[in-house]
Amino acid sequence: MAAHYGSSVLKAWCGADAAGWRRYTDHAFVRGLGDGSLPPAAFRHYLIQDYVFLVHFSRAWALAVVKAATLEEMKLAATTVDGLVNHEMQLHVSTCAALGITEQQLFDAKEEPENLAYTRYVMDAGLSGDYLDLLAALSPCVFGYGQIGQTLSNASPKANPFQEWIDTYAGDEYQQICQAVGSVLDQATHARLGANPQSNPRWASVTNRFLTATALEVSFWDMGWRAGQ
Amino acid sequence: MAAHYGSSVLKAWCGADAAGWRRYTDHAFVRGLGDGSLPPAAFRHYLIQDYVFLVHFSRAWALAVVKAATLEEMKLAATTVDGLVNHEMQLHVSTCAALGITEQQLFDAKEEPENLAYTRYVMDAGLSGDYLDLLAALSPCVFGYGQIGQTLSNASPKANPFQEWIDTYAGDEYQQICQAVGSVLDQATHARLGANPQSNPRWASVTNRFLTATALEVSFWDMGWRAGQ
Amino acid sequence: MAAHYGSSVLKAWCGADAAGWRRYTDHAFVRGLGDGSLPPAAFRHYLIQDYVFLVHFSRAWALAVVKAATLEEMKLAATTVDGLVNHEMQLHVSTCAALGITEQQLFDAKEEPENLAYTRYVMDAGLSGDYLDLLAALSPCVFGYGQIGQTLSNASPKANPFQEWIDTYAGDEYQQICQAVGSVLDQATHARLGANPQSNPRWASVTNRFLTATALEVSFWDMGWRAGQ
Amino acid sequence: MAAHYGSSVLKAWCGADAAGWRRYTDHAFVRGLGDGSLPPAAFRHYLIQDYVFLVHFSRAWALAVVKAATLEEMKLAATTVDGLVNHEMQLHVSTCAALGITEQQLFDAKEEPENLAYTRYVMDAGLSGDYLDLLAALSPCVFGYGQIGQTLSNASPKANPFQEWIDTYAGDEYQQICQAVGSVLDQATHARLGANPQSNPRWASVTNRFLTATALEVSFWDMGWRAGQ
Repeated sequence: MAAHYGSSVLKAWCGADAAGWRRYTDHAFVRGLGDGSLPPAAFRHYLIQDYVFLVHFSRAWALAVVKAATLEEMKLAATTVDGLVNHEMQLHVSTCAALGITEQQLFDAKEEPENLAYTRYVMDAGLSGDYLDLLAALSPCVFGYGQIGQTLSNASPKANPFQEWIDTYAGDEYQQICQAVGSVLDQATHARLGANPQSNPRWASVTNRFLTATALEVSFWDMGWRAGQ
Repeated sequence: MAAHYGSSVLKAWCGADAAGWRRYTDHAFVRGLGDGSLPPAAFRHYLIQDYVFLVHFSRAWALAVVKAATLEEMKLAATTVDGLVNHEMQLHVSTCAALGITEQQLFDAKEEPENLAYTRYVMDAGLSGDYLDLLAALSPCVFGYGQIGQTLSNASPKANPFQEWIDTYAGDEYQQICQAVGSVLDQATHARLGANPQSNPRWASVTNRFLTATALEVSFWDMGWRAGQ
Repeated sequence: MAAHYGSSVLKAWCGADAAGWRRYTDHAFVRGLGDGSLPPAAFRHYLIQDYVFLVHFSRAWALAVVKAATLEEMKLAATTVDGLVNHEMQLHVSTCAALGITEQQLFDAKEEPENLAYTRYVMDAGLSGDYLDLLAALSPCVFGYGQIGQTLSNASPKANPFQEWIDTYAGDEYQQICQAVGSVLDQATHARLGANPQSNPRWASVTNRFLTATALEVSFWDMGWRAGQ
Repeated sequence: MAAHYGSSVLKAWCGADAAGWRRYTDHAFVRGLGDGSLPPAAFRHYLIQDYVFLVHFSRAWALAVVKAATLEEMKLAATTVDGLVNHEMQLHVSTCAALGITEQQLFDAKEEPENLAYTRYVMDAGLSGDYLDLLAALSPCVFGYGQIGQTLSNASPKANPFQEWIDTYAGDEYQQICQAVGSVLDQATHARLGANPQSNPRWASVTNRFLTATALEVSFWDMGWRAGQ
């Protein structure tokens, strides 16, 4: 898989604030996952909050079904909702079950402010804008986890306690989702901003959606990290 | 399967205007499907319009994911979106492919006014109200097709030219969806209107959502029927 | 005031299907208003349905506040919501009060299918797209009534029984709203589709929003006309 | 004016977590406004952020127009949107103009995370639920500012540098808005939860909307306070 999943739009967005993208994808929490040093309490707190995150992230992808303008845009979003609810969330459920936490407890867990801020921002990006505004706000999570999974998988030692997490995002299934989203992202951008999207007046605002969501990802890691201190 | 899929709410709604429910479930179009006498032009026109209907119906179920308040409400809606996009719509696609019509042509087909009116009414029921308002507007399609499928399957001769259509809605897969929606419908109603939903002040308005959507189903059959005259 | 309220976008949209625009702005119902020959029953039915229309049209302009991306877009929409609820709807209320119909009866009037179809289409244009998609669906009503008011005012005899209606839409207050909407329409289009909006890939779909809403206006007049036959 | 603006629902919500309500209405920032000791930098930062808050708060009230089920619910929301955009926001504009900050600069100001979290949570309360869910999330701001204005007005010395702010919220115009919202809040609750709303299963979740928004108000004051340290 290519670094930007074949998406020139993603490449431009990651380059628009490379330091910000690094703060997210190379966060202390991420490094702790990679070398196995992350405190278990941090991981546990993250897992519970991330389950709640995925509930709202699924809602946001469902809103993308509502807002899709083409058959491809609709199918991608419908498939992603199914993948999130029936696959990605289940990783959390099974991991947490081993810790004695039920799915209902996960669903009812109290959201941290950083969690609430992020997902509601994404929902409102969809309500206020169109499919592309929403996709821009969804992208940092989708692609960032793909890049993190790949990076950690290439670098991490065997028998890492977080191997299952790493393998999920480094695995073919998740990487192919990234590839599919990258393809639709470029199509969706060209269908709205034209062949030279960076010269369209909307470019700054959709880029800003991506950068704001990236900053909210950094806060999310901060929140998980804090629980381990 | 029981007549009202185990849902006391559905039973009350169907009884609130029994003549209206019959106009929908015993429409001339339906009888024509059952005895094989429906003009092919009517069925073809219906299939194309119904594909467009299912696009927007999928959007409406996706909006239900956005609006779900419990894990069960969310899972039901997410599963239904997947079922609609990846199963029910594919019946139309394969049938239409045999007639030389591509899925892209289906997606781009010009909507009849009766089609547009129905689906946009359902979407706005969701935008203006809560999950239950949306579910009330979604219910006539879900359950009506289940009842029609069962009735026609019990009565229709073999070798009916519309057997595949009948079998789809009479089949276990679709009937189980009805059962699952019936179960969530009662839960969702009790969670909002209380143990005696008919004494809650909202009862009239959610019932009205169901009756309005039922009347829009009648118009939809009228539209299909017209194409065969 | 200029014919297209200073908006080059409106001019292009009206020209995209000139016959369709004439079917709306030169409908038999409109001519009946202009020469005073419209049957009173048709006008009465129209007034009641149009009040319900304005309820949902106000909701659609409120959705435009939700979706505004600039201060001007927000202020225009907020002012229009206020103007609709507190001015345009009051013309209906006072006229209907003289006929013994209360505002609550107007609010609760049963919607005709043509009415429901039109407003829910506009709402969903907003939910599925962005501010411009919504504005395109709102435009035929705003500008068409402005043009009709001007045309009838220039041509109609004194003592026309529908003079108050004509004067409302021909009057400075309404004409200035059209001018303001025309200005924001061009700004909103350029901010999303660029300096040459007709070369942006979205041009066809936003134009289609306008044309669909125009056709729904024709159906709305048909509905009023029918009540007078 | 009564302490809870005649609303038994508000009284119950404020009592559900009296300590939380006090943390908001008796925050150090509020006391600093009352005795004039608030650092000017804190007030300036607050004013800019609160302008951005009001943009999104106006959007949320506009969403309430979209979601209104009765004429009263719609009129209250439409009037409030107008009041916010054309009156309350203008206090900020004129105060900031004196500091050399234009309205466009206010509109474009970078949102603090606490600000973003709060308003997007309110928007999503509306998107996911019904009018009452939205009103519950809007209530802490509306009523809290009313109570704070009254309290500070009764207690504060003359010539307080924040007198204009205090007078705005203690003034008749704002207090009457609180009274009107309190009246619609009780109506809207009874119309959905019945005559004994606390026995309806939704009571816990609408109360939670109120409490979460109250906590987000505390964070908003924290954010303003921080700028003065």
